[in-house]
Amino acid sequence: MLRVLKFGGTSVGTLERIQNVTEIVKKFRNQGDDIVVVVSAMSGETNKLIEYANHYSKTPNEKEMDMLLSSGERVTSALLSISLNEQGFEATSMSGREAGILTTSEHTSARIENIQTKNIKDAINDGKIIIVAGFQGVSTTNHRVTTLGRGGSDLTAVALAGALKADLCEIYTDVDGIYTTDPRLVPKAKKLEKISYDEMLELASLGAKVLQNRSVEMAKKLNVNLVSRSSFTPEIEGTLITKEENIMEKPIVSGIALDRNQVRIGMYGVIDKPGIASSIFTALADAKINVDMIVQTVGTNNTTNLDFTIPSSDLKKTKKVMADFKSDSKNIDYNDAICKVSIVGVGMKSHTGVASKAFSALANENINIRIISTSEIKISMIVDEKYAELAVRSLHDAYELEK
Amino acid sequence: MLRVLKFGGTSVGTLERIQNVTEIVKKFRNQGDDIVVVVSAMSGETNKLIEYANHYSKTPNEKEMDMLLSSGERVTSALLSISLNEQGFEATSMSGREAGILTTSEHTSARIENIQTKNIKDAINDGKIIIVAGFQGVSTTNHRVTTLGRGGSDLTAVALAGALKADLCEIYTDVDGIYTTDPRLVPKAKKLEKISYDEMLELASLGAKVLQNRSVEMAKKLNVNLVSRSSFTPEIEGTLITKEENIMEKPIVSGIALDRNQVRIGMYGVIDKPGIASSIFTALADAKINVDMIVQTVGTNNTTNLDFTIPSSDLKKTKKVMADFKSDSKNIDYNDAICKVSIVGVGMKSHTGVASKAFSALANENINIRIISTSEIKISMIVDEKYAELAVRSLHDAYELEK
Repeated sequence: MLRVLKFGGTSVGTLERIQNVTEIVKKFRNQGDDIVVVVSAMSGETNKLIEYANHYSKTPNEKEMDMLLSSGERVTSALLSISLNEQGFEATSMSGREAGILTTSEHTSARIENIQTKNIKDAINDGKIIIVAGFQGVSTTNHRVTTLGRGGSDLTAVALAGALKADLCEIYTDVDGIYTTDPRLVPKAKKLEKISYDEMLELASLGAKVLQNRSVEMAKKLNVNLVSRSSFTPEIEGTLITKEENIMEKPIVSGIALDRNQVRIGMYGVIDKPGIASSIFTALADAKINVDMIVQTVGTNNTTNLDFTIPSSDLKKTKKVMADFKSDSKNIDYNDAICKVSIVGVGMKSHTGVASKAFSALANENINIRIISTSEIKISMIVDEKYAELAVRSLHDAYELEK
Repeated sequence: MLRVLKFGGTSVGTLERIQNVTEIVKKFRNQGDDIVVVVSAMSGETNKLIEYANHYSKTPNEKEMDMLLSSGERVTSALLSISLNEQGFEATSMSGREAGILTTSEHTSARIENIQTKNIKDAINDGKIIIVAGFQGVSTTNHRVTTLGRGGSDLTAVALAGALKADLCEIYTDVDGIYTTDPRLVPKAKKLEKISYDEMLELASLGAKVLQNRSVEMAKKLNVNLVSRSSFTPEIEGTLITKEENIMEKPIVSGIALDRNQVRIGMYGVIDKPGIASSIFTALADAKINVDMIVQTVGTNNTTNLDFTIPSSDLKKTKKVMADFKSDSKNIDYNDAICKVSIVGVGMKSHTGVASKAFSALANENINIRIISTSEIKISMIVDEKYAELAVRSLHDAYELEK
């Protein structure tokens, strides 16, 4: 089978850890697998180079930043290749250019346009282990080195796995998989064996340190079997993120996600004239503010109340936009002492009563739900932030996710 | 005019020093010059990467070493370009590949085969300052990155200056030029304004820390006007190394070189049979031992004496070869307490009495000359090492080089 293995900065952060990665690669090789490895820069290196650049400029030239930052991954790829060669394995490093990763020319945040697999396929056929410098490619227009932005090495791995039709794309970090919820909140949280792309995207906060949505979306699009696992405990299998059809026993609920970075905005006593809600949300969308949950309720005296949430990071921008609508409302209230708790599971599609179980679980704890929104595979609820941990624990219990 | 400026590891060793290089480049730019800069890795970086590689292997794969080591120069080129861009100068970094430096595929010691100047010329015509990552190129056969070995960044600069027909190729180090002799031995030694390629090659020891013979030879071949100067005292002009025709007033003696790393080998009482000397020196040549000076003198009883010198580093190899000739000689004597003092000057060609002045200068100090060899522009003498400094000082005085 063909495996693409990706090791992040922490996994290759020291010479000893690169040695450890060598052992992981060797194990698969000795099983007879074909292997393409994608590596990040050693942890700390990229930040060091950014600091160097900022010594000269607060807004360094982006083409040059790509020349600068792409060097870190090249170093790691050569070191891992040297380590494998020394132990008798034929390995070869490849820069993004050599690996055929063609991108747009948006320097520092280029998008992969195409992958020319000839070089890699030839090397695989020659029996080599290929070590690709992640995070980088070459622009199809100016032919200079580009970088792919945050999470870029994961994208390199997923895109290569897609182009090579690899059987697996394993993303190694210092976390051994995706859990039913954050184990710091619920110590008995359980590692998931399998989860669908859509569930993973909805549970983003559970994978925040492990997988970026950008990579999961690409894996879904290219139909890549993604595995989240740890290079520090390679004996543990990790979590497979795959398409729903590949998951035989579909759990009703797969996991509980918590997002504390939400602000709830309440507009009370809005004169109920047609189009008012639409004009507010159009204005917010124009300002590129990502409105998440929306509830409209009827007030007294022909007025209406609007409740919606935005990411905390957009609060300043939002207040600016909302200033234009001050006269339309009796009162606009901003509350950041709230959080969003989400229950996610593909099984919800075919099961009823999932939501009511959640509501009673929270009611039992006297937790008031401020806003509710549901989708095919998710129920999200806004509650006061002080109840965050309690809400997650009681929902985890209610759906018996520890089993 | 078109200037190629090369800055070595010490000149770009810290962020502040790169800033200092920015100022030097700006000054020439503001004069209206076209500029191609060649940079080394920040001092210490290359050694750090070699140590990293040696953590995994004593004989790391050479292709991978090139991938690894070429990253240091890329970093410096991007940083200098960022610094220049920030100050409003249009600059662009180029890897060896982008600069069109095509090499053989002898990884870690590749030779430049050809330079495709289109990229650089286009950028010059666009009004850009070009910052080339030195020490590296790309193999014409396997298309991988290669490095040029010791002194590789100097070679990059000289080869580019030749290919671009630059007016000057300035090599910046922490030394401000070539002196009539080592100023640590003779404090009144004088910096030379001009010197010919051939003199420079003969005075190698005086330029040892500044210019490698490989670069001077290439400059001679490509007719590149080479300047040795310091990035720490850019106001000082440095020494121009150029072809003899460009030097109007040809000094009889330009400089005095001292080489302590010589061993004198004496074979005494060699039976004088035909071909014996020839077979000894053929054997030494076959072992790639660089025999420097040779003197044969007639001994007593139909025997002959052979005296010759080799570099100290070849002593072990030489002893091995000489073991085969033990029976041909009464006695073989190895003496490393000697040194070679050389007087170099193109004016010797047309002046007589140069050698006799040297001999009397040493005789006046009771310094015995063991071996003498002369060429068109050089007189070399082997003397006891204890007289090294005295010999250099008395010769420097005899030819009035301080004037």
